[in-house]
Amino acid sequence: MKIPEYTDSFILAPGFRAAGVHAGIKADPQKSDMALIVSDREDTVAAGMFTTNKFQAAPVVMDIQKLKKGTSRAIIVNSGNANACTGAQGKLDAEEMAQRTADRLALPVDQVLVSSTGSIGKPMKMDPVRKGIDLLTAQLDPKGGNQAAAAIMTTDTRPKTCSTVIEIDGVPVTMGGCCKGAGMIEPNMATMLAYICTDATIDTENLRQALKVAVDTSFNKISIDGDTSTNDSVICLANAHAPHNTLTPQHPDWEVFQTALNGVLFDLAMKIVWDGEGMTKFIELRAEGAVSDADADKALRAIANSFLVKTGWAGTYPAWSRMVDVLGYCDVEIDTENINIHYDDIPMLIKSTPASPDTEALTKILNSNRYTVHLNLGTGGEGTAVLYTCDCTEEYVRINMF
Amino acid sequence: MKIPEYTDSFILAPGFRAAGVHAGIKADPQKSDMALIVSDREDTVAAGMFTTNKFQAAPVVMDIQKLKKGTSRAIIVNSGNANACTGAQGKLDAEEMAQRTADRLALPVDQVLVSSTGSIGKPMKMDPVRKGIDLLTAQLDPKGGNQAAAAIMTTDTRPKTCSTVIEIDGVPVTMGGCCKGAGMIEPNMATMLAYICTDATIDTENLRQALKVAVDTSFNKISIDGDTSTNDSVICLANAHAPHNTLTPQHPDWEVFQTALNGVLFDLAMKIVWDGEGMTKFIELRAEGAVSDADADKALRAIANSFLVKTGWAGTYPAWSRMVDVLGYCDVEIDTENINIHYDDIPMLIKSTPASPDTEALTKILNSNRYTVHLNLGTGGEGTAVLYTCDCTEEYVRINMF
Repeated sequence: MKIPEYTDSFILAPGFRAAGVHAGIKADPQKSDMALIVSDREDTVAAGMFTTNKFQAAPVVMDIQKLKKGTSRAIIVNSGNANACTGAQGKLDAEEMAQRTADRLALPVDQVLVSSTGSIGKPMKMDPVRKGIDLLTAQLDPKGGNQAAAAIMTTDTRPKTCSTVIEIDGVPVTMGGCCKGAGMIEPNMATMLAYICTDATIDTENLRQALKVAVDTSFNKISIDGDTSTNDSVICLANAHAPHNTLTPQHPDWEVFQTALNGVLFDLAMKIVWDGEGMTKFIELRAEGAVSDADADKALRAIANSFLVKTGWAGTYPAWSRMVDVLGYCDVEIDTENINIHYDDIPMLIKSTPASPDTEALTKILNSNRYTVHLNLGTGGEGTAVLYTCDCTEEYVRINMF
Repeated sequence: MKIPEYTDSFILAPGFRAAGVHAGIKADPQKSDMALIVSDREDTVAAGMFTTNKFQAAPVVMDIQKLKKGTSRAIIVNSGNANACTGAQGKLDAEEMAQRTADRLALPVDQVLVSSTGSIGKPMKMDPVRKGIDLLTAQLDPKGGNQAAAAIMTTDTRPKTCSTVIEIDGVPVTMGGCCKGAGMIEPNMATMLAYICTDATIDTENLRQALKVAVDTSFNKISIDGDTSTNDSVICLANAHAPHNTLTPQHPDWEVFQTALNGVLFDLAMKIVWDGEGMTKFIELRAEGAVSDADADKALRAIANSFLVKTGWAGTYPAWSRMVDVLGYCDVEIDTENINIHYDDIPMLIKSTPASPDTEALTKILNSNRYTVHLNLGTGGEGTAVLYTCDCTEEYVRINMF
């Protein structure tokens, strides 16, 4: 199978249009704050995955309901306000966003999804939102993907985009996406929004399955700060514009499609970690020797959420000793006499005894902006896991103080 | 019952001596780094509680073993190195510390406990430790409590001490203690050491029970950063110097004793929070309306360990919205439509709808260095909990980077 090539851009597949504008939710007129993505084709199917937080923001509750029927034509998004914990009015505001967008696009309201991201617990200011919807519907453009990607940012320092073109039955199929997220990010969905548009021909159920596989190996494998947000949403639209045989797991090119979807989502997820609030180091955590994959995963999440480990990574403190401490309290099965830890290929702890690492090589790793920590939990079990995370710096604290 | 009065000093009860010296484990000669506490009475009973971390430092493993018989005459302590994750050599080093101290004091080695605190995973430098033991045994003093309290500090900015004098059967009984701890602190024992000496007459089993009660309402109710250390130890020695009837739960003054022990430990625990690494605000968290005390406790611990909540407290961000987010993912039963949150007596969220707090009063609270957050989880249940914690600042990150 040919490995797809990825482009850092939100290329819209044929039959999609998008736009991003400054509507006035954010004070800074240089910052766009509303986006709209529209499929012009009636037979567009849609799949979504959403936060596991019990407090779901008003638009999340609405989208989950609408996506049950498996079709959707438009997504209206605002940044600057999460419309979460906003009571009955928040629900009305989300409904109004959908209705106004539907009216402007002459679509049934049940075909319009809504996303919001930003501060929690603040009432929506609807005047700019209404103005934004009017502006967006007038500016939809087949090349508008990157404008949409910019408009969904909050504390992100840059837009996050990825696209690829694959062949299904010899027909070119475009798959493009964007996401946002930099803080309140943890496995099982982050404070993040992600949208993927493709002109592939596929039914809802298979799109849902493919999306779940792709999310489980991408957005569900990252952690910035361990806080699962109220608004996390990943939505994929497929508009059947490409004239190939309908994709199913039995289709000879199914793997091409799944691989490309995995690839786009993984690329977007890694861009979230690389833009983690205040981050200076990208850390890949790998565990093996656990009694189960679940145990390996639990250990890595505990490590990725330890203040002491994360601040140690930020500097050059040998955080492996703090990881040992975490392994001891995170309630997974370990052999306390048989833990191995490597930084890249440098042994730090072998059979629970400190190694004597090559100081020069170690210093180089500790001062680099990306390294891998390998942990063996020592049980002899087959359980493994991987998690992508970052350090916690003074800048992270500054960003979140006000 | 008369409420005991507490003094900020480690007053040694009659029959105890202590000392603190600079032995050379820490580079700075101004900083003492070894302490010794000794009971001169043969019938001294002892009780201890230790970290729940699966990685227990070598001295912790040793102390737990020795305390099974319920008596102990001396505690030798070093700061600057935790002797944790130090393999077979660490065990030998802890044994040598006990043996040398026993030799100098002419005590059986099974009567000597050892504590270590500081960095994990570094081999002990035993030359200064040996010198320190010799210095300490020559300098033991009935007024040496505060010297010992100073010598056990690591990132603490000040010694933490508390003493009281009560009457049992009309006989004055002294109870004095000290502790250390500022980071790697979480409920279920912190990176902390605490020692309490009393001349009360009590048997081991009752001392153990009383200590457990006191720890559960003090050191187990605090959290700095959610990291349970490998070395946490609370040790209480009672030397039976005071000529009262042996204390049992049936003794008419049992409650006086338990109250004083609770009070000393609570005071010491609060001093740990007030000296939390980089802290600027002391936060008392109170939960009610949970289906059980365990649920209430779990919710508060999740809140106290959220990066976003803690950094919000550090500034003036209305962190109540982030607490709502935590309640949604921390896996406790809540009524998402019925959450109440107050800052002191200011309503922030009523029935899950943002209140309109008096801005001036709220600003005053957010800028103060101590306030209480009341959370009602809305289930109508009887479960309650309390937890004492602090904010997370840029200074916390700086302290832990290197």
